[in-house]
Amino acid sequence: MNSYGRIFRISIFGESHGFSIGIVVDGCPPGIPLLTDDFTQDFSRRKSGAKGTTLRHEEDIPEIVSGVFNNKTTGAPIAILFKNTNMRSHDYSGFKEVPRPGHADFVAMRKFDGYNDYRGGGHFSGRLTLALVAAGVIAKKVIQPVQINARLVEAGGNTDIEKAIDQATKQKDSIGGIVECITTKVPVGLGEPFFDSVESIISHLVFSIPAIKGIEFGAGFAAAAMKGSEHNDPVISKDGKTATNHSGGINGGITNGNDIVFRVVVKPTSSTHQKQRTINLKTGEMVDLEIEGRHDTCIASRVPVIVEAVAAIVLADLFLLEHRVAGGVK
Amino acid sequence: MNSYGRIFRISIFGESHGFSIGIVVDGCPPGIPLLTDDFTQDFSRRKSGAKGTTLRHEEDIPEIVSGVFNNKTTGAPIAILFKNTNMRSHDYSGFKEVPRPGHADFVAMRKFDGYNDYRGGGHFSGRLTLALVAAGVIAKKVIQPVQINARLVEAGGNTDIEKAIDQATKQKDSIGGIVECITTKVPVGLGEPFFDSVESIISHLVFSIPAIKGIEFGAGFAAAAMKGSEHNDPVISKDGKTATNHSGGINGGITNGNDIVFRVVVKPTSSTHQKQRTINLKTGEMVDLEIEGRHDTCIASRVPVIVEAVAAIVLADLFLLEHRVAGGVK
Amino acid sequence: MNSYGRIFRISIFGESHGFSIGIVVDGCPPGIPLLTDDFTQDFSRRKSGAKGTTLRHEEDIPEIVSGVFNNKTTGAPIAILFKNTNMRSHDYSGFKEVPRPGHADFVAMRKFDGYNDYRGGGHFSGRLTLALVAAGVIAKKVIQPVQINARLVEAGGNTDIEKAIDQATKQKDSIGGIVECITTKVPVGLGEPFFDSVESIISHLVFSIPAIKGIEFGAGFAAAAMKGSEHNDPVISKDGKTATNHSGGINGGITNGNDIVFRVVVKPTSSTHQKQRTINLKTGEMVDLEIEGRHDTCIASRVPVIVEAVAAIVLADLFLLEHRVAGGVK
Amino acid sequence: MNSYGRIFRISIFGESHGFSIGIVVDGCPPGIPLLTDDFTQDFSRRKSGAKGTTLRHEEDIPEIVSGVFNNKTTGAPIAILFKNTNMRSHDYSGFKEVPRPGHADFVAMRKFDGYNDYRGGGHFSGRLTLALVAAGVIAKKVIQPVQINARLVEAGGNTDIEKAIDQATKQKDSIGGIVECITTKVPVGLGEPFFDSVESIISHLVFSIPAIKGIEFGAGFAAAAMKGSEHNDPVISKDGKTATNHSGGINGGITNGNDIVFRVVVKPTSSTHQKQRTINLKTGEMVDLEIEGRHDTCIASRVPVIVEAVAAIVLADLFLLEHRVAGGVK
Repeated sequence: MNSYGRIFRISIFGESHGFSIGIVVDGCPPGIPLLTDDFTQDFSRRKSGAKGTTLRHEEDIPEIVSGVFNNKTTGAPIAILFKNTNMRSHDYSGFKEVPRPGHADFVAMRKFDGYNDYRGGGHFSGRLTLALVAAGVIAKKVIQPVQINARLVEAGGNTDIEKAIDQATKQKDSIGGIVECITTKVPVGLGEPFFDSVESIISHLVFSIPAIKGIEFGAGFAAAAMKGSEHNDPVISKDGKTATNHSGGINGGITNGNDIVFRVVVKPTSSTHQKQRTINLKTGEMVDLEIEGRHDTCIASRVPVIVEAVAAIVLADLFLLEHRVAGGVK
Repeated sequence: MNSYGRIFRISIFGESHGFSIGIVVDGCPPGIPLLTDDFTQDFSRRKSGAKGTTLRHEEDIPEIVSGVFNNKTTGAPIAILFKNTNMRSHDYSGFKEVPRPGHADFVAMRKFDGYNDYRGGGHFSGRLTLALVAAGVIAKKVIQPVQINARLVEAGGNTDIEKAIDQATKQKDSIGGIVECITTKVPVGLGEPFFDSVESIISHLVFSIPAIKGIEFGAGFAAAAMKGSEHNDPVISKDGKTATNHSGGINGGITNGNDIVFRVVVKPTSSTHQKQRTINLKTGEMVDLEIEGRHDTCIASRVPVIVEAVAAIVLADLFLLEHRVAGGVK
Repeated sequence: MNSYGRIFRISIFGESHGFSIGIVVDGCPPGIPLLTDDFTQDFSRRKSGAKGTTLRHEEDIPEIVSGVFNNKTTGAPIAILFKNTNMRSHDYSGFKEVPRPGHADFVAMRKFDGYNDYRGGGHFSGRLTLALVAAGVIAKKVIQPVQINARLVEAGGNTDIEKAIDQATKQKDSIGGIVECITTKVPVGLGEPFFDSVESIISHLVFSIPAIKGIEFGAGFAAAAMKGSEHNDPVISKDGKTATNHSGGINGGITNGNDIVFRVVVKPTSSTHQKQRTINLKTGEMVDLEIEGRHDTCIASRVPVIVEAVAAIVLADLFLLEHRVAGGVK
Repeated sequence: MNSYGRIFRISIFGESHGFSIGIVVDGCPPGIPLLTDDFTQDFSRRKSGAKGTTLRHEEDIPEIVSGVFNNKTTGAPIAILFKNTNMRSHDYSGFKEVPRPGHADFVAMRKFDGYNDYRGGGHFSGRLTLALVAAGVIAKKVIQPVQINARLVEAGGNTDIEKAIDQATKQKDSIGGIVECITTKVPVGLGEPFFDSVESIISHLVFSIPAIKGIEFGAGFAAAAMKGSEHNDPVISKDGKTATNHSGGINGGITNGNDIVFRVVVKPTSSTHQKQRTINLKTGEMVDLEIEGRHDTCIASRVPVIVEAVAAIVLADLFLLEHRVAGGVK
C-alpha cells in the first residue's frame, strides 16, 4: 500500500494540507554520508517556477528525523519530514459534491467512505512526490557509480518543448509530455526472476507518480511493428554489450549490462483555467466547473527528477538483493 | 521474486525441461467450484496451433495437488502441476557459450553463476505462462461478475493481423504485436493508495510475461499530445460514469467504475529461422547463429489469455483487500 | 525489518537521543475517531514513576502528523511523532570500547560497522516502545469490542511484587518479571493457516519488545508435564466454549472463541547500580564497569501496556484479513 | 499465510489425505549440491517408529520437481513433492459434527465455512511438517558451517524420557515434552532491528509447528526470578564471547556470537486411546468421543528435527539478508 521494497524499503505518508508529509527509508546500508544540502539540487529540479509550472514556492526543507548520526547513515530507518507551509486557504469542500474531472476526488471519497482529507488532493497530492525525490537522493548514493538521467523529450506532441508550453499557456490549457530515463554503468544481473523483473518493479513504482499513464522499455511500442531480425540486439562483447539496444538493457527481466532505457507518458494536468463539465453528485445535475488557483501548464516538466528517484529506489533494492553493498562487491 | 500478491498470492516454479512446472495459489476464498475442465478453454487459447504459432502440442493437463475438496476450494493453498512431456532433445549446452540474441541465455548464466538450467530457457521459458493462465482461471472466478477480455489488435504494425503473419512467415521472420485488454463491470474503489495503484500492480504482473516491453492505460502515450481540456473525462452520472474514458477507468490509482482499458506491446519472438550475429563468449569471436526447431512467427497471438490471467490475479487480490469476498459484499 | 503487518501495517523509526521517534500506521480503516487525548491513559501506564521505575519524566506528547482529519482517521497512513526532550548529556562514546553486558552495544556496533547511533541505546532504546503503545491505542479501537488486559503477575520470582521490588532496590540490583495478557470477546476464526498462526504473529511482535525472552500460551510450559487427558479442553457449547482453557484460546493456530491467554517473561534490566565485569575491546583487558544514571529496578512494571499494544496490533491485522472492518461484519 | 521469508522464502501446501503435500523454496543460492539422499537422515528422525510414536510407516520420498539441475541448485525455486500413500480410510466426516478436543476440527470448519478438507486434519495435519524438514535440509546447507542440534530433554515432566513414555503408554494416555535447540558457530550480527529480531522470527516459525505452545531463549522463564547482576553475561573476549549465556546468544535481537539456545514446549498429543467429552454441534448434546487408530504417546519425540529445520530456515534468510552467500563472504 504505502510502502514498497524488499530490503531498501520506503514508507510514505502525509497530505497536501496536513501538518507535514514525509517518508521513512528502511534498509539503507550504514556509513553513507548524508547532509541536508545533498537534497538541494534534486528538490530544485522538482520545484515549480520553470516555464510551464506554477509560481507557488514551497520551501522544501528536509528535516532528517532519524537514521543519520555524525552526518552518516546508521543502518536504522531514515525518517524525513517536510512541513506544509504554503497552503492556500481555498474551500475544497465543494469538490466533495462536484468532483473535478481527471482528479481523484470521486474515487477517494468513495474508497474512504467520505473520511479522506480532500483538501488539495489530500494523500493523492503531487506534493508527496517531494518525499519520493528525497528517498531517491539517498538511493542514488547507494547505487553509485550507476548514473540515472531523465529529461522531458516531448510536450504536447512537440519536441520544441518551450514553444508547445507557450502555446498551451496562451490557450489557458494544459499539455502532456514524454519523459525519457537512461541509466548508465549498470552491472549485469540485476533483477529477480519472474515477478520481480526489472521492468516489473520499475513500472510498479513509476505508476505511483501521479499523472503517468504509460511506460515502455527500449524500442517499446515501436517493437510491435518490428521484425525479430531487426529487434534482436546482437551481443558484441564478452561482457554483454550489444550493437543496438532495442531491449532497453533488459533481457528476461534481468539487466544485461547495457543502458536501461525507458520512457513514460505524463497526461496533461487535469486542472486548467478552462471551464469543465462534471456532475453535482448531490443533485445529479451536470454543471460547469472552473478551478481557481495556480495550475501547471505542463506538469511533465517537473516529472524527470521524480522518475529518476523511483528508478534509483528500485535499483537500490535490487543492488542490495544482489548482495552488493554501497561501495562493496558481491 | 517468484511469488506475488498480498492476500490472493501466487508462487510459480518449474523449468521448461524439468519434471514439472507449477503454481501455488494461496489466499483463495473457500467454496469456489473448481474442476479440471474449468481450465480447458483458457489453456486452448494459449496453446500453439493457431496461425503464427508453432505446431508443438503440449498436453497441458492440470494436476490439482491440493486445496480442492469435493470439487470446491477449501481455503488452503491450491497447488497445480503440469508435467513436461513433449520436450525435444536439443543440445542446448551450446547457448552457454554462444548466447542467443534477445533471449535470457547470457543474463541467466551470469546471474546464477552458470548453475541455471539452460535447457529450453529453463525457468525463463514461456512454458511457465501456462501456470499463470491456471491461476488466472481461479482468479476470474473470484472476481465474478467482473469480466476481462483481451485480444490481439495489431501485429507487425498492421491491423489485418492474418495478412501480417502470413507475410512474416514467408520471410522466415517474426513480428511483434499489440494486445488490448478491457475489463468491464468494475466496482468503484479498487486499488490501494500510492504504491499499489491499479496501474502499478497490473503493470508489475504484466511485465512478468516474457516479451512484453510496454504498457499504456486509457489514452496512454497519445495523452502526451493531448490537451487537458481534451483528456479530462467529464463525470456524467452519480456512480462515476464518464463521457469519455481517456483515463482507462483509473483516477489516482483507484478504479472509477468505468472499464479498465490497457494495451501492451509484445516484442517479436527472438528465435527466428534467420541467421543472427552474436558472440562466442569463450573465444570472443563474432559468429553466425541459426536456431533450429519450432518458432512462433507471432508469439503475440498467444498473449491475450495470459494478459487476462494476470489482470484477473491482480483484481482478485484487490477485491480481497477491499473486504469483498467472492459473491459477497463489503 | 522495521515494519510489520499485512494490512494493518506499522513502520517504526527513531533513536533515543535523536530529534524524534515515531511510527507510521498504514492500513487503518477510515472513520475511526482519534484524538490526542486517546493516548493519555496508555502512555501514563508505560511512563516511569511507579515503584521500581526511574524518575525520568518524558512528556510523551504525540504529534499526529497525517492520516487524521476532523478528528477521524482518513484511511491514509497515520504518522505519529514524539520529540525527544529529556535526554541527559552523558558521554556514551565509552560504550563503543567497553560494551555494557546484556545491552546491544556490542552487536549494534558490529552489525552496523560502527556507524550506529550509540547514544542511549540508539534505535535499540526502550524509548521506541512509546511508538508501539501509540499504534496499540489505534489498534485497540480497530478491534472493538475485543478487550485486552495485561498485568505484572510476578517479579523476582515473587507474587508479592511490591515487596520484591523494595528488596531489589535496597540491593541496588534489578529483577525480572512475568506479564500475563488476557484477551476477551474474541471471535472464532482469527489467525491464518501455517505460518501466520495467532501464536506465530503474537510472539513475533512480542519479541520486538526489548527484554522479553520467552512466551507461553495457555498452559504453556506446564503442558510438558501434563497428560493429553488433562490438557485437552472439552468443547461444551456450540460456539466453541471449552470447560478449561489449556490451549490459551487457540487451536491449530486459529482462535477458538475462548480467551486468548499468554504470558511473557521480562529479563531483569541490564543496567544496575552494581559494578559489572566486561571487556575493553580496544585493549582486550577485562575491566569493571559502573553504569551511571537512572535505572529501573523492575522494567517489567512498564511492560504490560506494551504487551497489550502489540497484541492489539496483531489482532487488528488479523481482523482486517478476516474481512471484518471496525464496527462492521464479514 | 502459507509462505514465509524475505529472501530464502518457503511456500507450503497440501493436506493429509490429498494427492501430495509439498513445499516451494525460493531464493536459495545457486550451486548448492542437492541429492535425494541428503534428505534421508532428517526424514528418518521425524518418522514414526521410535518409542512413543505410531507404527504408521510413510515412505517420505521427496520428488524434486524443479530448481535442481545436474545435482546442484540453480537459483530458481525448488519445489519438492511428497505423495500421500499410506492413508487409512477412516470416515472423518463425523468430526464435522463432533469436534475432537485439542484439534483444529472446530476452528477449521468455522474459518473456512465448512469447505475445509477435514480428513486427517487436512491442511492442519502434522504430515506437513515433513515439508518443513525438507526445506530445513536445504537451509542447513546454506548456513554451513553453522550447526543446529535439537533434542528432547524432558517428557511428561521427567528427564528419564523412556520411562515416562512407557508409563503413559500403559495408561493409554499421551504426554508432552520439552525440546532444546542449540546452534553453534553463529556469526555476530545476524538478525534485523526491531520486528525481525532473531527471537521474533525463530518464534514465528516455531509456532507453525503443530502442538508447540511456548518458547524461551537462554535463561528464559527462569530470568523472572533472577537479578540483573546474575543474568547479565560478562563479555570476555573481543569477538563477543561471554562467560555465561543467559541471553541465549542474542542481545537486542541480534546474534552476539555465542550459541543460540532456546527451548520449546510440546503439548501432549490430543488424540489418545481414552474417552473424551465433547459436544455434538448439531444436537447441542455432550457426548463421549473415542478416537480410533494409531496415536503417538509422545509426539514431542518427533519434534527435534522439525525445530532444527525451522531454525535453519530462519537463519538461512538472515544470512542472505546479511549479504553472505553460501560459502561466501560479506
